[in-house]
Amino acid sequence: MTARIFAKGHGTENDFVIIPDEHGEIDLSPDTVAFLCDRRAGIGGDGLLRVVRAKHVDAECDPELWFMDYRNADGSIAEMCGNGVRVFAHWLAVEEGLQGSFRIGTRAGEREVTVHSATESEASVTVGMGAAEVTGVSTALIGSHHFAGLGVDVGNPHLACVVPGMTASDLEALELVAPEFDPEFFPAGVNVEVLTPLEDGRVHMRVWERGVGETRSCGTGTVAAARAALADAGQATGSVTVVVPGGEVQVTIEDENCTLTGPSRIVARGHLVV
Amino acid sequence: MTARIFAKGHGTENDFVIIPDEHGEIDLSPDTVAFLCDRRAGIGGDGLLRVVRAKHVDAECDPELWFMDYRNADGSIAEMCGNGVRVFAHWLAVEEGLQGSFRIGTRAGEREVTVHSATESEASVTVGMGAAEVTGVSTALIGSHHFAGLGVDVGNPHLACVVPGMTASDLEALELVAPEFDPEFFPAGVNVEVLTPLEDGRVHMRVWERGVGETRSCGTGTVAAARAALADAGQATGSVTVVVPGGEVQVTIEDENCTLTGPSRIVARGHLVV
Repeated sequence: MTARIFAKGHGTENDFVIIPDEHGEIDLSPDTVAFLCDRRAGIGGDGLLRVVRAKHVDAECDPELWFMDYRNADGSIAEMCGNGVRVFAHWLAVEEGLQGSFRIGTRAGEREVTVHSATESEASVTVGMGAAEVTGVSTALIGSHHFAGLGVDVGNPHLACVVPGMTASDLEALELVAPEFDPEFFPAGVNVEVLTPLEDGRVHMRVWERGVGETRSCGTGTVAAARAALADAGQATGSVTVVVPGGEVQVTIEDENCTLTGPSRIVARGHLVV
Repeated sequence: MTARIFAKGHGTENDFVIIPDEHGEIDLSPDTVAFLCDRRAGIGGDGLLRVVRAKHVDAECDPELWFMDYRNADGSIAEMCGNGVRVFAHWLAVEEGLQGSFRIGTRAGEREVTVHSATESEASVTVGMGAAEVTGVSTALIGSHHFAGLGVDVGNPHLACVVPGMTASDLEALELVAPEFDPEFFPAGVNVEVLTPLEDGRVHMRVWERGVGETRSCGTGTVAAARAALADAGQATGSVTVVVPGGEVQVTIEDENCTLTGPSRIVARGHLVV
């Protein structure tokens, strides 16, 4: 069966094509995913979220859970997406009536989500992101500027650089180009965040995603940024509002688990014309 | 009334949000258009086509005609779009049952279109583009390369540069950056086409659109390119297949009128979630 019904949504402007497929009947080849995510020839999205019961996929989680089958825009398979999980949970709240806290399956394991509020178009969702482990300190060269940052592993590698004295407008004016980093420290590449120091519980952040370039938002990147901003302020745990180009989210850092709270927006629903 | 129903389509990957509004009831502020065309926060498109009867807009054409109310992605008003007209005619064929040749209203005047074939998803359409007037010769500097070309007015200004000896793969490898041009010759700026010489009735073309950058296709640009390729081959009139990154179209150049024939694709239909 080919995909016919879709929705389009985003979390802080990290956007997704949503394909409902409870019974795992839809054939989603890499070519089909790439077509659906093509912004000019298809629907357009940073990625695709297939909404399927876990029993229909080869996943190590409770088979009755809803499973977030996340694909990158190029059709490749991805493990997790902190912004995508919010949109996924929003969809389940609207479409399946799920409320409050529940677990969903992902390729990175089961995740706890809490839907605080949800209308057809808007929701606020908290996602358990697991631990954010500091791996050391390193530097990045962006254009002619050197930045020092904290290596943070949030399931994927980050270098979160708090820049002393940087303001939100300085950050906005920064020419963010592909960072050069230490390949011995980050052998699989790294996502680089540049951020303002913590002030009144808030930081402003921009992010360069590994293999993608600058994006409007990166869920795991906001967690890494909050971790680094707290550390820079002498705190191991706490809550931080992270302002990204696509909106803002709240990150809570605890020793064993971090949570990411933010908006989801479902913009349109429709069917493919074939 | 706010927009609720939409479709998404493209002509050689120049893509549009289609908003049906026969009776002119929908309030399309620049902000609304910009939101709908936003590729991450909205639906996404290079522009928007409102499908409205001419009597409901301030247009100098038969009030009973269907009028293509074309908007740029930033919400500003635009006159014409050769790729958009095909998608507009395709929509009328599918939705209103229009067949064969008919006229539509645009801000650049009435245009004759012919729908050769149309399914729900695909159509082939010819659009009358008016005259393509040669305005002289000029040059452009792209990176460190100088290109000589023919100035062609197709309702908007073009500089179409046939490059002797250039192959399709040379063209693909070209680093196309913002061209420098003669501002005395093109006081309002210019769209620049770089193309291979005419061979077996075909040329390959890339285009840098004024105020936009490189695009997958430009309808008036393909007409200018065909005019220049024919002139380069010593012909004033004739037919040329123009291959662009987003597909291919056929251009026929006559003394008083040019036509552009190409595909239209309607990809999805749906409603906005508000």
